Amino acid sequence: MNRTTDVEFTTRLRAVPTQGAAGRTVLIAGGAGFLGSHLCRQHIDLGARVLCVDNLSTGRMANIALLLDHPSFRFLRHDIVTPFDPGEPVHFIFNMASPASPPKYQIDPIATFETNVIGSENLLKLAERTGARILQASTSEVYGEPEVTPQAEGYRGNVQTMGPRACYDEGKRAAETLFYEFHARRGVDIRVARIFNTYGPNMDPDDGRVVSNFIVQALSGEDLTIYGDGSQTRSFCYVDDLVAGLMTLMYHDEGDIDRPVNLGNPGEFTVRELAEMVLKVTGSRSGLVSRDLPADDPTQRRPDIDRARKLLGWVPKVPLREGLALTAPYFAAELKRNAHVGS
Amino acid sequence: MNRTTDVEFTTRLRAVPTQGAAGRTVLIAGGAGFLGSHLCRQHIDLGARVLCVDNLSTGRMANIALLLDHPSFRFLRHDIVTPFDPGEPVHFIFNMASPASPPKYQIDPIATFETNVIGSENLLKLAERTGARILQASTSEVYGEPEVTPQAEGYRGNVQTMGPRACYDEGKRAAETLFYEFHARRGVDIRVARIFNTYGPNMDPDDGRVVSNFIVQALSGEDLTIYGDGSQTRSFCYVDDLVAGLMTLMYHDEGDIDRPVNLGNPGEFTVRELAEMVLKVTGSRSGLVSRDLPADDPTQRRPDIDRARKLLGWVPKVPLREGLALTAPYFAAELKRNAHVGS
Repeated sequence: MNRTTDVEFTTRLRAVPTQGAAGRTVLIAGGAGFLGSHLCRQHIDLGARVLCVDNLSTGRMANIALLLDHPSFRFLRHDIVTPFDPGEPVHFIFNMASPASPPKYQIDPIATFETNVIGSENLLKLAERTGARILQASTSEVYGEPEVTPQAEGYRGNVQTMGPRACYDEGKRAAETLFYEFHARRGVDIRVARIFNTYGPNMDPDDGRVVSNFIVQALSGEDLTIYGDGSQTRSFCYVDDLVAGLMTLMYHDEGDIDRPVNLGNPGEFTVRELAEMVLKVTGSRSGLVSRDLPADDPTQRRPDIDRARKLLGWVPKVPLREGLALTAPYFAAELKRNAHVGS
Repeated sequence: MNRTTDVEFTTRLRAVPTQGAAGRTVLIAGGAGFLGSHLCRQHIDLGARVLCVDNLSTGRMANIALLLDHPSFRFLRHDIVTPFDPGEPVHFIFNMASPASPPKYQIDPIATFETNVIGSENLLKLAERTGARILQASTSEVYGEPEVTPQAEGYRGNVQTMGPRACYDEGKRAAETLFYEFHARRGVDIRVARIFNTYGPNMDPDDGRVVSNFIVQALSGEDLTIYGDGSQTRSFCYVDDLVAGLMTLMYHDEGDIDRPVNLGNPGEFTVRELAEMVLKVTGSRSGLVSRDLPADDPTQRRPDIDRARKLLGWVPKVPLREGLALTAPYFAAELKRNAHVGS
C-alpha cells in the first residue's frame, strides 16, 4: 500500500512570508480535506504546531496519515457545528471546513449550510476568545453565475437563494457576512480568500469535480464525461499555487487585508479543452461522452487576481498542463491503493 | 393614556381565503412587531388561537396590549435563536421575527443575523416536528441594490456580502435557502413572501424608516430629513394590503406556492414626493433638510407583483395618500401617549 502520495507531490511550495507561523499553533478546520491537508503539511514543515480538526465527512485520513506521528501535529475528529475547546492556545485559524464539490455538498445540504454558517461562527467565537487571526476559505461560488468576466472582488454576484447550489453558495456568502461583523464589531483579525477551482494531489478521486473525474476516467480507460457541450469555461489553479496564496494572505500584514481576496488561476479553458489535455497528459485512449448540464451549473468562472497581485505579490505559476502532469501520478497511486484495498 | 390605537386603525382587511385558520393554532414569531401584531389581531378576529412569540428587542407590548386578555391569545417572551417547545400543537407559523429597519438591525448585527438564520432554522425544525405550514417574512432586501426595475422573483439580486446591510440582507437570503432545503429535503410545507416597504399603524415611531420619520417629524413640527437629494425612489404598501397578501399566501393551496412571492405596492414615489405628501396630509408647516446618503442605501426598489396577482389574485388597493391619512392619526396618538408617559 502506497501511503506516500501526500509527501511526494506537495513539495513545490514557493517562498511565502511565513515567519509568523513558526513556533505558533495553527488550527486547521477541515485539515484532512484537499486544501486543508496541504496546509497541515506546510505548517509542520515550517515548524508550526498544527491542530487539525475534521469530522471526516469528506476529509480523508489518508491525506494526513504521515503527519499523525509528528510531535507537533494533533488530530481532533470533531464537527465544528458543535462548539469546542481546542485545549491549548491557538494563534492562527484556517477555516477550510465544508464539503466543496456539488455532489458531496448536496448529499446533506442542511449540514453543508450549517458547517458554513454555524461552524464559521463557532470558529469566529474561538478566534475572539483566543485572539487568533482567522482565515475564511470563501469561494468563487459567492459570484454564482457571473454576468461579468473576469470576476473582481467588487462584483456582488448572481446567486440563487433557492436552488440546488444555494446551501453552499449562500452558506459561504453568509459566512463572509459573519466574518465582516466579527471584525467590525468585535475586532477579530480576519482574512477572507475567495478560492477558485483548484486541483492537485490529495483531491478525493471520488469527489465529482471535473479534474478528478477526467483524470480518474482517463486512467481507468473510461470515456470522459462532459456535461453540456463542454463549451463552459473554468479556470484551474494548481494546489501548490493556491496554498502559497492562502499562506501569503494569512501571514501578510499590510493594506486592507481584511477584505476579500480572489485566489485562483486566471487561465481560462473550456471543459472540452481540459478533457483533451488530460487525455494527452495521461496517454489515455479514452473518448468523450456528453451528458445533460446539471441545473444551476455556472457557464463561466474566471478570477480577476489584480488585488492578490498588488496586495500580496502573489500570482500562480504552474501552467495547467504541468499541473495535470504532476497530478496524474497521484491519482494513479490512489487507484492502485483502492484496488489493493478492494482486493 | 390611549391604548386603543391598535384597534382603531387595523380593521380594513379585505376578504382573504382564511377558512384554513379558524379553530387552528397559529404561532406568530415577532408577533409584537409591526406586521406581526396585525397578524395576531386578524387571526384572533378569524377565530384562530394565537401564540405570539417575541423577545421584544424591537417588538412592543403596546401593539398587542388589547389582545393579552383574550382567551385565544397567548404571549411568550422568547428569543427564537434558542429552540423552544410551544407546549401545544401548532398548525401554522408566521416567521416575522427580526428587527427590520437599518438603524435597529444594525444595533447588534450579529444578533440580527442569528435571528434570521438560526431563528429561522429553529422554526423550520418546529414546523418539521409539528407538521405546521410555515411562512417566511423575506424581504425586498434580498435584491440589494437592484440593476433591474421592477424586481421580479427571478431576479437574483445585487447584494454585498460584506457591508453594513449584509447582516440583514444576507441573513434573509440564507433563511430563504434554509426554507428551500427544509421543503426539498424534509417535506416542510413552506411559503416565502418577499415583503417590500410597508407602513401603517403599529410602526415604531422611532424605528428610523422613512414613513415613520417623516410623519413624526411633520407632527412634531420638525423639518423632514431627506437623505441624499431625495430622488431615490421607494414603493410604499399600506399595512392592511400587505397583511391581506401574507394571509392569502399562507392559506392558499394551489400552484407552485412554495416559491417566493413579492408582496408590495408597485406605485413608485421619490422620497421627496413622499415628504411633500406627508406635509399635505398632516397639514404640517415643517420644511425639508438634506443629509448625506448612508452607505449601501438602495437608490431604487419597486416590486413586480405579477406573480402575486396571478397566483393569489392579490393586489394592493390603498393609494399612498389614503394610507398616509390613515396612518397619521396613529402616530399622533403615539406621540401623545409618549408625551403623557414622559410627563
